Amino acid sequence: MNNQTLKLRRIAIDTYHENVAYLHRECAVYRAEGFQALTKIRICANGRRILAVLNVVDDAAIVTPSELGLSEQAYAQLNASEDCAVSVDHAEYALSMDAVRRKINGERLTLADFESITQDIAASRYSKMEMAAFLVATGQNNLDRDEVLYLTRAMLETGQQLNWGEALVADKHCIGGIPGNRTSMLVVPIVAAHGMLIPKTSSRAITSPAGTADTMEILAEVNLTPKKLHDIVRRHRGCLAWGGTAKLAPVDDMLIAVERPLGIDSQGQMVASILSKKLAAGSTHLLIDIPVGPTAKVRHMRAALALRKLFEFVGDQLNIHLEVIITDGRQPVGRGIGPTLEARDVMQVLENDPGAPPDLRQKSLELAGRIIEFDPDVRGGQGYAIARDILDSGRALGKMNAIMEGQGAHTIDFTPGKFCYEVKAGSAGVVAGIDNLQMANIARIAGAPMDKKAGVDLLRKTGEAVKTGDVLYRVYAEFMSDFEFARKLVEQDSGYTLSKAAAVQQHDAFL
Amino acid sequence: MNNQTLKLRRIAIDTYHENVAYLHRECAVYRAEGFQALTKIRICANGRRILAVLNVVDDAAIVTPSELGLSEQAYAQLNASEDCAVSVDHAEYALSMDAVRRKINGERLTLADFESITQDIAASRYSKMEMAAFLVATGQNNLDRDEVLYLTRAMLETGQQLNWGEALVADKHCIGGIPGNRTSMLVVPIVAAHGMLIPKTSSRAITSPAGTADTMEILAEVNLTPKKLHDIVRRHRGCLAWGGTAKLAPVDDMLIAVERPLGIDSQGQMVASILSKKLAAGSTHLLIDIPVGPTAKVRHMRAALALRKLFEFVGDQLNIHLEVIITDGRQPVGRGIGPTLEARDVMQVLENDPGAPPDLRQKSLELAGRIIEFDPDVRGGQGYAIARDILDSGRALGKMNAIMEGQGAHTIDFTPGKFCYEVKAGSAGVVAGIDNLQMANIARIAGAPMDKKAGVDLLRKTGEAVKTGDVLYRVYAEFMSDFEFARKLVEQDSGYTLSKAAAVQQHDAFL
Repeated sequence: MNNQTLKLRRIAIDTYHENVAYLHRECAVYRAEGFQALTKIRICANGRRILAVLNVVDDAAIVTPSELGLSEQAYAQLNASEDCAVSVDHAEYALSMDAVRRKINGERLTLADFESITQDIAASRYSKMEMAAFLVATGQNNLDRDEVLYLTRAMLETGQQLNWGEALVADKHCIGGIPGNRTSMLVVPIVAAHGMLIPKTSSRAITSPAGTADTMEILAEVNLTPKKLHDIVRRHRGCLAWGGTAKLAPVDDMLIAVERPLGIDSQGQMVASILSKKLAAGSTHLLIDIPVGPTAKVRHMRAALALRKLFEFVGDQLNIHLEVIITDGRQPVGRGIGPTLEARDVMQVLENDPGAPPDLRQKSLELAGRIIEFDPDVRGGQGYAIARDILDSGRALGKMNAIMEGQGAHTIDFTPGKFCYEVKAGSAGVVAGIDNLQMANIARIAGAPMDKKAGVDLLRKTGEAVKTGDVLYRVYAEFMSDFEFARKLVEQDSGYTLSKAAAVQQHDAFL
Repeated sequence: MNNQTLKLRRIAIDTYHENVAYLHRECAVYRAEGFQALTKIRICANGRRILAVLNVVDDAAIVTPSELGLSEQAYAQLNASEDCAVSVDHAEYALSMDAVRRKINGERLTLADFESITQDIAASRYSKMEMAAFLVATGQNNLDRDEVLYLTRAMLETGQQLNWGEALVADKHCIGGIPGNRTSMLVVPIVAAHGMLIPKTSSRAITSPAGTADTMEILAEVNLTPKKLHDIVRRHRGCLAWGGTAKLAPVDDMLIAVERPLGIDSQGQMVASILSKKLAAGSTHLLIDIPVGPTAKVRHMRAALALRKLFEFVGDQLNIHLEVIITDGRQPVGRGIGPTLEARDVMQVLENDPGAPPDLRQKSLELAGRIIEFDPDVRGGQGYAIARDILDSGRALGKMNAIMEGQGAHTIDFTPGKFCYEVKAGSAGVVAGIDNLQMANIARIAGAPMDKKAGVDLLRKTGEAVKTGDVLYRVYAEFMSDFEFARKLVEQDSGYTLSKAAAVQQHDAFL
């Protein structure tokens, strides 16, 4: 409160979406104000104010006692120049933390509460600790469906919203958890070839061995400017781009950055995250894929149904035409796991290669068929046949090539990693199960997604008979150390369960 | 996973109990591993491993691309020298985060769960976000009483425990929230003069205008070495020291550091925090003061009773003799609010000054009497009279002077801050209520506890009749800017409620 000013200094430290301020321990203001490490402080310059968490510095080479240092994001947000005078003060809590505390106490929040929370988060007024508190307080079953709706709406309102100027903008989204599930790269060219607008943006892998953006990057550039993305979509009716540059529903990205290291997630937050992003991207029609299986994200049909109804409730209230499809998530889709191997599978399906993985083809046609039926001119039940015709005729491949060229085609090389380990059947029998989580772990430890050629190639899938010594799958790595780690992991648990022929599971009876 | 090593560099940034690692954006390991800001990484050197949260740096003056920087605490924990080779890896989550996630999902945790959590926190394996997640997950009513017991035991086990070698080591603790409530500074000399061991350590103010340590500091040194503290206690049977240096129940301090900026607290966490600290300090007999009132921390008698039973349950299980006293928390205790003014009140009571605040004297005698009755040689019901005799005879003052001299007496100056604002009654009537929270706010805005002489001096208390223009209280500040802020706050809400004489509240009927 002594109104002493300090000189502003930019500290080139990236603290992600948390504003951090650095004060020297000998700084007069620090000593007078009784700040402590982690104290939240308010910084004023030229009439602008920001909040930041305090770190105390003992090295004048970083900040001197007469300076206030700000991390990159905080410096950008204060929008003042270096050496200008700043004053520092105890911060009030972000006002909306009252609502978070009410939520912790078990109260129901209103739309206005969620709006004030997302506005404060968007303005970087929350510390990481405060975001973690919000996530835990609203996690698990702590949001009722109205609150999920409010959160979705509030997240949507904090960012910009694209408008494609068309009545039907299609999109699809899988809630994730199934390795090799690269249906988007087949659905987009099929649907776009039908003439529907499907401007698909995808994420990179967060905890999985490959995201759609990582896999598409094997074939073409995915990091597109907004202008280029628009041009491609206008010309080809679809794209397969990375969504990271679009700044749609930015609060969602900020929350995910905290959620990920905490390893927590909840259905309410997932629905709000997915729908706010899709609405911000201007989608009018959306197909949601919920895979169910013992090692999938959703493990029981009743949980899948509850999640479907939550998606439907929020989607209907927000005027997006939304359909949910519950799919077989009992094993990985396709053969490859990892960017290069998954891209190979996709191209084999597009090229109608007889060796293409039939499950990836089948699932993609089902999803594409459902999206094509969003078209009012398509008769109910005809979508699948239309999708199959587009794929079989080579029109999907043609569309994919056009999109790749539009985005900037890469030289394609499907050679997998140079170290290869073959995992063989120890006895004769039938593949009774493949663990999604373990196969994803093996592929990640082998180097995917950072090492594009690393991953796992599945030669046998559930229900197939094997003889002793048959290769079940191959593990590929680019580095010896990763290869050794992956091999150890395989030796602990191969992820495969073999059974005698009598115990074969019926692949189509999972529902 | 590429096993490249980096050179260790110490970064003189104090990130409190969170380990932070700094990597340059151009660092080959950062690029190869796909780390992101906030990623948790594992750092190995000479066979030792620590976990840290990553910050990305763009300034080679802080770290170069071939270095790994560590914040002060992380550097100390790794215990390796600068320039030594370190390797960096993706970290597994701290194993006990599984238990936190189970708690978030509503499960009940075991003693072993709480032990693994507190061990991981003590070893700095938790990020601030993870600690926030733990606090919210165990906040509010999310811990049953067995879990509060487990948490208390687990926090106790992570630090050292003092042993005074006596059968009866007394202590008192107030849950807080009432300005001016400096009873410890009267209870300690009275109880010590009776001959009981009462080695009292106190905190500084966190969110209040004065803690016992801040107030005692007006009279004597409070920052004592463990050896000096022991010598004083052995010689005088008591002390009034700051507890910050003792490192008792260190996990409690680390959790409080996150809890405070979040502004959350829960009864279960409070009980675990208080009892783990007191047990670690070697107390065998403990009196807990729970003030109840509309602006106190506990607002209803039924909540106070529930809290009492929780304290009793955990205390009994942990073999501490624990009694709870529920007191009148409807207004501040004494006259002064702020370190200097509160120290003046305390000395007036000890000196039997006829102007001494009667409520502070009365409450301190009640608490001291209850503690004296812990003495098996004292007949039930006689404690109050013994305490009063010790106070009235001047023996308490003598004991206080001895303790002050032992700790290092300061030159006493009770002159309040140089700026003074008098708040006067706008009409005749009776003081019907004084808002604890608003009076604390006014004192803090005026500069307390950092400006020792700042604060509020109450001239009228609840139940007293006032004429128009009578001074209700004075606000003191050391700086003009603080003074102006405090005056504005008073003008918004004086904190006093006046009523016509008929509506006088019965001071003793609050239960």
